[in-house]
Amino acid sequence: MEQLPTRKKVIETLFEKWTPEDKTELIPVSAALNRVLARDYAASCTIPVVRASCMDGVAVMSERFRDGIPDTSEWKNGEDFCRADTGDDFDDRYDAVIPIEAVTISDEGKLTIMPEVKVTSGMNIRPAGSTIRKGDPVAKKNRRLRPFDLSCLAMGNITEVEVYRKPRIAFLPTGNELVPLGAEVRRGNNIDSNSILAENLLLEMGAEPVMYPVTADCAEDTAASLDRALKEADVVVLNGGSSKGEEDINARLLEERGAALFHWVAAAPGKPLCAALIDNKPVINIPGPPVAVLYGMDWCIRAIVHRLLHVPMPKRQTIQGVLTEEIAAPPTMEILCMMDVDHTEEGYRVRQKPWKGGGSMADTLGAGAIYITELGVSSKQPGETVEVTLLRGEEDFL
Amino acid sequence: MEQLPTRKKVIETLFEKWTPEDKTELIPVSAALNRVLARDYAASCTIPVVRASCMDGVAVMSERFRDGIPDTSEWKNGEDFCRADTGDDFDDRYDAVIPIEAVTISDEGKLTIMPEVKVTSGMNIRPAGSTIRKGDPVAKKNRRLRPFDLSCLAMGNITEVEVYRKPRIAFLPTGNELVPLGAEVRRGNNIDSNSILAENLLLEMGAEPVMYPVTADCAEDTAASLDRALKEADVVVLNGGSSKGEEDINARLLEERGAALFHWVAAAPGKPLCAALIDNKPVINIPGPPVAVLYGMDWCIRAIVHRLLHVPMPKRQTIQGVLTEEIAAPPTMEILCMMDVDHTEEGYRVRQKPWKGGGSMADTLGAGAIYITELGVSSKQPGETVEVTLLRGEEDFL
Repeated sequence: MEQLPTRKKVIETLFEKWTPEDKTELIPVSAALNRVLARDYAASCTIPVVRASCMDGVAVMSERFRDGIPDTSEWKNGEDFCRADTGDDFDDRYDAVIPIEAVTISDEGKLTIMPEVKVTSGMNIRPAGSTIRKGDPVAKKNRRLRPFDLSCLAMGNITEVEVYRKPRIAFLPTGNELVPLGAEVRRGNNIDSNSILAENLLLEMGAEPVMYPVTADCAEDTAASLDRALKEADVVVLNGGSSKGEEDINARLLEERGAALFHWVAAAPGKPLCAALIDNKPVINIPGPPVAVLYGMDWCIRAIVHRLLHVPMPKRQTIQGVLTEEIAAPPTMEILCMMDVDHTEEGYRVRQKPWKGGGSMADTLGAGAIYITELGVSSKQPGETVEVTLLRGEEDFL
Repeated sequence: MEQLPTRKKVIETLFEKWTPEDKTELIPVSAALNRVLARDYAASCTIPVVRASCMDGVAVMSERFRDGIPDTSEWKNGEDFCRADTGDDFDDRYDAVIPIEAVTISDEGKLTIMPEVKVTSGMNIRPAGSTIRKGDPVAKKNRRLRPFDLSCLAMGNITEVEVYRKPRIAFLPTGNELVPLGAEVRRGNNIDSNSILAENLLLEMGAEPVMYPVTADCAEDTAASLDRALKEADVVVLNGGSSKGEEDINARLLEERGAALFHWVAAAPGKPLCAALIDNKPVINIPGPPVAVLYGMDWCIRAIVHRLLHVPMPKRQTIQGVLTEEIAAPPTMEILCMMDVDHTEEGYRVRQKPWKGGGSMADTLGAGAIYITELGVSSKQPGETVEVTLLRGEEDFL
């Protein structure tokens, strides 16, 4: 049997032949969570402008303390001292702050300073620029903006940022049998549940899903939808129709366009996946089964989205689990296994859910984790420990 | 020195005295990513309604194959057999599907079946309900909805779901020195960068931030803002003014309302945090420094939001890092340390960033991870391994 191309090979070849176009836009910092900067940013202001007290206290002139605590009985608030709380600036005549705990101020405004207090110039004062200094780097190109990054940008008084546009990923479900969510399900119908899966996976990746209604299994309609999607999106995902059946129009369409790079890959479910480049845009046909969509979106579309976003793919939560049943797989294929995860006193126990036959598809999609079989390995035995990637937060299993 | 209440104690006491009100709403499944279900859901339809082919092939009558491959030279498409691709239903007279690879269909529609083919009733057919069966559980109460959950709900033809309303968390920045992002920064001014930090942390938690403009340090204005926020939100966060200075109106306000549960906690930065219950709503005053906001939002507000959402707090990505410098801390306090993280050939090396003095506040907020000192431990030595919680994805460090 001929070795089909691996996921790695497909992505490498696609990235070799494809020249992604960088599209950026200017957006308010307040709307930039999880967006990726297209350039470095430096602070446009210095804070404190002059200085600030770093505690609640009173500001004084240190030179008057050269010989110990001076007589403060005649001192006037606003002349000889002033209140200076954390973050406050104060008149230039003062150069030190005594903590509020070390003084008392009477109702008449008379200041008394505890005898043990030592006062030196600059004491308890943060200098200009200690929060931020004009020109300080505040956020880096090609970094996903976290809440902390946004507050750094704000400290630097940056109001707008240039970010990569969210990659527009068109999703075109195809299939005569599909009816939209909420429709009556008649004999021979299936609900288009892949659209909601794909749309939400795309949202999580930081892409902008461009969702299309179901196209029937008809070559002309599918070609028309593809053309429209190629105008509107950066990447097109066709879904369904890629194996060997009469209705497998999508894969033929990509081949006819003369741009198919791969058809059939060493990854299942979804082995008949077809990858192409049309007008320098990746067009991927993912087979219809929900788990094929999950896998194809995960290894192929996710890589493409992150390439357009200029960020590495996020590492996801993994756990080490002991297998309770064998996982057998052809060593030439990377098989996605949907896994049940149990947390026991001895640690995690994991077991493959059947993805064909056995439990329902809904039960399969409700798996807690995924495991992908290794090339060159045909079996993992009960008792072996494997690393699985969680589909929910680990807290859901504890 | 008296032991201040720990974070754990503050949260426990608050949760003891507070009776959170469950508020739910009905929303479309398509808009329910990361929302939390307020009830269980079961499928409202069965798919396939009757059955479906599980491969691309031809549907036939198995009884004709009892004595081996029959003579198919006179068979007519649509009478004696029909095409049945993956997912297709077909006429009741057929009860088995032969894979397309095992037959040929001539241009005239004549079927030829390879001699080695064995045909049994039900072969390659998925029965009714193998995708989903009416009444099958599709999603559980008190679970955050992941893309896979949404597709399970869609498979069950559930169009709307009852979810907990996003907790409305009001954020009220206070301070005479604060100017909004984008304003000119004059001597004594500071930019309100905490609002953008808090707002985006709240969004990440799954809350609905209700943001207020800056209130000056004035008791009447602050009381009015608090009253308004108590009407509009489930939880109120005041920010600034909680230590001992003249402008520390917020903490006094909570104490005057007779509802303060705690003022001063064994957690820094942000030790003067003040927690109260007013009208059965948590009101938290978090001190002004950005790192105090980060910490207070993280241990206190996050716990409150997850309590309202009925889900455990997400476990975050952690790494084991070797300290390159000592971390010293009072053993009675849980100190938040902002950490630099370096990935080396020998693994991760971590080091505390100074949060007062030293680097700028912006630099401090740009830390890669946080570490919280343990109660009862006064020092961690260079060379010791500590677990730190990452503030970015691990992929950013590799």
